[in-house]
Amino acid sequence: MFTVDLDKIQRIPVPDSVKRALREILGEDRVLDDDMDRMLYSYDATRIQIPPDVVVIPQTQEEVQKIVHICYENGIPVTPRGAGSGYTGGALALKGGVLISFEKMDKILDIDEENAVARVQPGVVTFTLQKAVERVGLFYPPDPASYKFCTLGGNVAENAGGPRCVKYGVTREYVMELNTVVHTGEIIHTGKPTLKDVAGYDITRLLIGSEGTLGIFTEITLKLIPKPKAKKTAKAIYKDIASVGETVKEIFKAGISPSALEFMDKLAINAVEDFGHFGLPRDAEVLLLIEVDGHPKAVEDEIKEVARICELTGAIKVDIAQTDIEAEKLWEARRALSPAVAKLNRTKINEDIVFPRSYLPEALPQLREIGKKYNLKMVNFGHIGDGNVHANFMINGLDPEEVARAEKAVEEVFDLALRYGGSITGEHGVGITKANFMPKQFKPQEMELMKKIKRVFDPKNLINPGKMGLD
Amino acid sequence: MFTVDLDKIQRIPVPDSVKRALREILGEDRVLDDDMDRMLYSYDATRIQIPPDVVVIPQTQEEVQKIVHICYENGIPVTPRGAGSGYTGGALALKGGVLISFEKMDKILDIDEENAVARVQPGVVTFTLQKAVERVGLFYPPDPASYKFCTLGGNVAENAGGPRCVKYGVTREYVMELNTVVHTGEIIHTGKPTLKDVAGYDITRLLIGSEGTLGIFTEITLKLIPKPKAKKTAKAIYKDIASVGETVKEIFKAGISPSALEFMDKLAINAVEDFGHFGLPRDAEVLLLIEVDGHPKAVEDEIKEVARICELTGAIKVDIAQTDIEAEKLWEARRALSPAVAKLNRTKINEDIVFPRSYLPEALPQLREIGKKYNLKMVNFGHIGDGNVHANFMINGLDPEEVARAEKAVEEVFDLALRYGGSITGEHGVGITKANFMPKQFKPQEMELMKKIKRVFDPKNLINPGKMGLD
Repeated sequence: MFTVDLDKIQRIPVPDSVKRALREILGEDRVLDDDMDRMLYSYDATRIQIPPDVVVIPQTQEEVQKIVHICYENGIPVTPRGAGSGYTGGALALKGGVLISFEKMDKILDIDEENAVARVQPGVVTFTLQKAVERVGLFYPPDPASYKFCTLGGNVAENAGGPRCVKYGVTREYVMELNTVVHTGEIIHTGKPTLKDVAGYDITRLLIGSEGTLGIFTEITLKLIPKPKAKKTAKAIYKDIASVGETVKEIFKAGISPSALEFMDKLAINAVEDFGHFGLPRDAEVLLLIEVDGHPKAVEDEIKEVARICELTGAIKVDIAQTDIEAEKLWEARRALSPAVAKLNRTKINEDIVFPRSYLPEALPQLREIGKKYNLKMVNFGHIGDGNVHANFMINGLDPEEVARAEKAVEEVFDLALRYGGSITGEHGVGITKANFMPKQFKPQEMELMKKIKRVFDPKNLINPGKMGLD
Repeated sequence: MFTVDLDKIQRIPVPDSVKRALREILGEDRVLDDDMDRMLYSYDATRIQIPPDVVVIPQTQEEVQKIVHICYENGIPVTPRGAGSGYTGGALALKGGVLISFEKMDKILDIDEENAVARVQPGVVTFTLQKAVERVGLFYPPDPASYKFCTLGGNVAENAGGPRCVKYGVTREYVMELNTVVHTGEIIHTGKPTLKDVAGYDITRLLIGSEGTLGIFTEITLKLIPKPKAKKTAKAIYKDIASVGETVKEIFKAGISPSALEFMDKLAINAVEDFGHFGLPRDAEVLLLIEVDGHPKAVEDEIKEVARICELTGAIKVDIAQTDIEAEKLWEARRALSPAVAKLNRTKINEDIVFPRSYLPEALPQLREIGKKYNLKMVNFGHIGDGNVHANFMINGLDPEEVARAEKAVEEVFDLALRYGGSITGEHGVGITKANFMPKQFKPQEMELMKKIKRVFDPKNLINPGKMGLD
């Protein structure tokens, strides 16, 4: 679902009495309801546009409590919004009502160096936290492609990933505590700022990845780890994907846990070169970027071993970046992929399926076939180390026939991932765009269970309603 | 609560009709209800005795489904049991009914080397899996003290920890998929055998640590990692706990992530020496064991750096184990702690509170004071790297006055942990023994939320009822 027909959705307007109440709490400046403001908060990276009725901009936890309380009492939907960088419409106010923007709750509240813990408001940009903790020798690994502008609240809501997750795990592994405003306007505090805590049910992890549908985060405690002392990057070029599969297998078999293991196909390489001239080889079928990090001596040994494995398993050219600047240039090329691919056409349908990694060499050619079958421009890249592939269809988006073809292609992409025991989403979440596909991955009793949990947290279905196929 | 007055508990007997139905499914041999068998399954490591009405021993997932279906239909409680090695009564059939022992569901179903994933039945002993995966160069880190006899089903139910968790995380971080028999007798499958998967709510992690109160696990998929190529252990002796705190702080500050960081106090050292003559220094106030693992060159550098830090921060003696045998001897001493301490008196009350680690030097002397105040023999040891302290009161257990004193002391121990922002349990769970203390850690609305979740999974309160204070 890449377009939403607003006429078909029951949208709940915000009555003047509620607007007045919100203005009493927040003042005039932080309650926006003119058309221009509503339009500015109506989109995310899906390019689907859904204007909220009212945008509110709280500055404190207490303000969020009051907003949720008033809205819930009056039957008004509330939708939390970080940077609006999501690919599935999670931050869009599908059913109208009040959109809560966290742009002014962007403070790093505490960096506790001794316990390696950071406490933040949800609107802190991921990169801002990373820079701040790196200054004191600590490290926050999760690195979604949007890390320079996405927010930690959104990262927690979506359980964000990124290249480094193959070694360091996803956002879930770094969240220790959450303050969450629930439907009554009360705050529940879950978790402890300790590495171990097994008292009660793990509500913290139920909330992580719940896409803002169970409650609204107002404070997040994150685990930090020591910053790796060194890292090295290698680049390998291949004529075929099967060899890449062999490389990946042998790297892990050698006991090396790379801190990133990324691939891009020919179309992706060329898109990046058109975009920024990074010096990538335009005629390569597949490009592999491998990073190892850790103790300097270990890194030195391991990157050489990685290069040796690449050569032995069929890479036609392998280079180890000799300087940090050289390495950074390679990663800049990788990070340029998303905007570069976006330039290929008006609308980018960016799916993020996952396979158990050993099946990738077999599955990737089938993925390409789907693009050919539906006559769509398709670019594949992603996190080959953890089996997470970004399968992008670049469409115009204005031609209903093309959109229909793309929808069919996406469904086949999901079927392929599920056939290999994978998932329809590794990083982006379900939101609006994948909501219809949930019954593909879950049995009716599993869907029913999730719906019941949703009702425990949100009996009136007003907390980010219409998402994840749980209505 | 270290004793349970069975007369005060509403226990639900199993009618003959249900016993007959169970025998039809499992045969005579795997449905036990004579007094001797019931007694054999009536205890765990708490030494509280609560006999189940009937013990059933399924061999397949389908048998578990039928057992749960019949019991639930007939209003009979079901309680899952692994090895009965828990410290909080989780595997005890508090309300009577049917105890499901997983002793015959002990197969490793698959070790997928390429994807570094193992699929097991819940009755597999943790150590058995570890040995099996290490044979192919892989590693399953969680290592509760009972790892040689506890089962993976129990580990998942309790979200088990261990010394290595300071570097590698707890059981939760290694569970990818679960098959869970829910109250209807249906199986819900949650998770994917991939490092990333964000479709739907994270029911897998809600189930981990739920102490068997939400459903009965029948199959577990575990993440494996490459086996570290080398490890080294250092032993450091201290005259005071404050210096140990400094050491811990400086080790992490140096960017070293130790794979174990364990301490024992004087009484613990002496208990171990009485038990097995491991050559530990009886006059030391605190003993610290530090292990680093990873790439051989990194390990070589890091253990020297660790030793240097120990000396600089006040250790009076530091030794690096020169051989694997020497190192193993040190770890044997550490592992002997639990049985050694148990010998100090008839009943061991083993609490497992957690502090944010920087507060330990300040909190540990206060912990000792509690022991003195109530005139109880107290032994403290544990995982100082993650702030998880095993505070053991060694009591006779037959003297009601002594038991009452111990109960008060335990309550003060919990208060101390909570005062420092810690948790009442880092590894053992809540079960029966900590059920009364849940409202200390959670606000009424948080307790209510957990109770509602319990009701979603178990509307009749028959799945391991009476645990975690959620009745």
